Amino acid sequence: MYNERAYKLGSKRSTIREIFEYAKKRSGEIGAENVFDFSIGNPSVPAPDAVNEAIVRIVNEMPSVALHGYTSAQGDKGVRDKIAANYTKRFGVALSGDDLYMTCGAAASLTVTLRALTCEGDEFIVFAPFFPEYAVFVQGAGAKLTVLASDPKTMLPDFAALEKALNPHVKGVLINSPNNPSGVVYGEETLKKLAGLLEKKSAEYGNPIYLISDEPYRELIYDKETVVPCPMKYYKNTFVCYSYSKSLSMPGERIGYIAVSPQATDAKALYAAVCGAGRELGFVCAPALFQRVAAECDGMTADLSVYKRNRDLLYNGLKDCGFTCIYPDGAFYLFMKAAEEDGAAFCERAKKYELLLVNGADFGAPGWVRIAYCVQTERIEKALPLFKKLAEEYGLC
Amino acid sequence: MYNERAYKLGSKRSTIREIFEYAKKRSGEIGAENVFDFSIGNPSVPAPDAVNEAIVRIVNEMPSVALHGYTSAQGDKGVRDKIAANYTKRFGVALSGDDLYMTCGAAASLTVTLRALTCEGDEFIVFAPFFPEYAVFVQGAGAKLTVLASDPKTMLPDFAALEKALNPHVKGVLINSPNNPSGVVYGEETLKKLAGLLEKKSAEYGNPIYLISDEPYRELIYDKETVVPCPMKYYKNTFVCYSYSKSLSMPGERIGYIAVSPQATDAKALYAAVCGAGRELGFVCAPALFQRVAAECDGMTADLSVYKRNRDLLYNGLKDCGFTCIYPDGAFYLFMKAAEEDGAAFCERAKKYELLLVNGADFGAPGWVRIAYCVQTERIEKALPLFKKLAEEYGLC
Repeated sequence: MYNERAYKLGSKRSTIREIFEYAKKRSGEIGAENVFDFSIGNPSVPAPDAVNEAIVRIVNEMPSVALHGYTSAQGDKGVRDKIAANYTKRFGVALSGDDLYMTCGAAASLTVTLRALTCEGDEFIVFAPFFPEYAVFVQGAGAKLTVLASDPKTMLPDFAALEKALNPHVKGVLINSPNNPSGVVYGEETLKKLAGLLEKKSAEYGNPIYLISDEPYRELIYDKETVVPCPMKYYKNTFVCYSYSKSLSMPGERIGYIAVSPQATDAKALYAAVCGAGRELGFVCAPALFQRVAAECDGMTADLSVYKRNRDLLYNGLKDCGFTCIYPDGAFYLFMKAAEEDGAAFCERAKKYELLLVNGADFGAPGWVRIAYCVQTERIEKALPLFKKLAEEYGLC
Repeated sequence: MYNERAYKLGSKRSTIREIFEYAKKRSGEIGAENVFDFSIGNPSVPAPDAVNEAIVRIVNEMPSVALHGYTSAQGDKGVRDKIAANYTKRFGVALSGDDLYMTCGAAASLTVTLRALTCEGDEFIVFAPFFPEYAVFVQGAGAKLTVLASDPKTMLPDFAALEKALNPHVKGVLINSPNNPSGVVYGEETLKKLAGLLEKKSAEYGNPIYLISDEPYRELIYDKETVVPCPMKYYKNTFVCYSYSKSLSMPGERIGYIAVSPQATDAKALYAAVCGAGRELGFVCAPALFQRVAAECDGMTADLSVYKRNRDLLYNGLKDCGFTCIYPDGAFYLFMKAAEEDGAAFCERAKKYELLLVNGADFGAPGWVRIAYCVQTERIEKALPLFKKLAEEYGLC
């Protein structure tokens, strides 16, 4: 009577949403101040003032029909040209407005790219830990997702596993750096190695293996020495999937883009496939007002100092408790080894202290947990003594 | 190397877009004032002032994180409750916020609904003339589109053809009233007849045949006696796909909704399938600010007096020239019989007078043309003498 897969996706909430709902219920019972919800990756800092200023200025200045009317399907030309010019300036790769396709955020960037690329029998590779919606998007495009392990010490790709897994059906490799949920950034060396392997295998199979780089956390980095390299610089057959959700703290407004590397083989045809996929999925165009806001605020960020403070406080605090943590270069997640083999059991134990964590198994990494630190700093300060008690239970300190 | 269908959809522009591009080129050659582009259905009147007022007020009043943050996937609860209450008040059917799913406009309403419903081997029925993107959306969902003729006198469904075409594989019938491209409104009698037939056949097959009502033009009607009946009143297994694009003159902002009739068999499961389909297609949530703008402006319209004036002027003018026209009860399109069998040839002949019309064959109705009258009234005044010359060529007057 209806599509069974859609029904399941719509009726079974994600674990993260379930915890979020539990937190609401629990807050009602014991007071919100006593519940420590580290489950959801929702920006906790306001958008930069420039966002609201741009909204009001554009609304006051532009004629209504021009402002609120359809833009071209790929996005307003002026918007694309401006963002592309800024991209070139920031990352040192040639990009024109005609290589950019404006989207309704990162999820749309991914579903459109995957639909544009997928042929029957195709396979995409991702490294655990990974954002679980990737499985939904890849399956939705009609392809198969293969999950490979990362090096558990660094959470960087296991290249031996990748070399073994690559085969002529692999249409692309999907990376996410800074990573949700590990916070790890893939540096230049990793990208070079990845590019080298993909080039070798592409040549061997006679077909390009695409690199799909999901970059919603690109600007969320906290140390001077951390650089998020531009993947187009290292590999020509690259799609960059971007969103302004996290950088500008406006995930509800649904605005982002796909950048198709102009160096890609048949770049123009790939771009046309992106346009066609967007059309088929029902996107028409990205929201017009926010296209213009994005162009005006491109490259800006919300105040990231809270995230940095939280990251430092949490990472050092948890280390002091004796927990094993991956140092988060970016994003607003910390990945921590569960103190027992069963991550779910560990999360249940943490719940006793009202600490709400997400089981790493949901990200393809059993035995780990994700802690989203996009919260008020005071929440972390109050939570650390509870983490200490939890650690003590396990004899970690 | 990429998805062939997506590539084709992205590289072959729709005919309407092609004409639009031709109009731009031709305007450069002979001046925009001498080119009469009746091809595109883009609202030509500003959004009501309430839209921009709401944007500015909401931006000034709501805290940034709450305003620009994610809403729930189905849309902000307050927004849905308000729109549902208004729906009940306006149309006299019980509807709650939990029956509404906010979308990125009509195209998204359709792709999400179709994806939610489609199982392998499914078929959807539409009556010609129809908006050609339906074919793209139905095919994108993995179903087959069957196009049936309308009664050429009234452009209302041919029920004999429908009865013959219905079979156990038909998952739904897709209607669009007021209609693009004919401007025709399906009245109460038509809906009752349709509901009766679908009920009978659903019972016969033991599976519901869904009615999908695409209603972006719902408020664009021009005569006191014209009423657009609410299909949920007549048939329980109904999905209403709505968009604020035309009523509020803001098609670029991508905001609309799906209303799943609470009377539908397994309504809760259908709603869950809608949520799951939206998730799989990458919608996450509808744009947050415009969800709130829509709730505040729901039921309002842009100034429709221009469209009514245009409709009257054009319809009467063309009749006077001797053309056969369908009286457009609503939307902003007029459907006219081509003065020769080959609609494409007729459009070419019209082009000689700089009149840019769309061939009805693109809407599944060869031998007809669509004239979009969402233009400045002065354009119609200046075009009518040219239509007269065209009519004279064919000996119509």
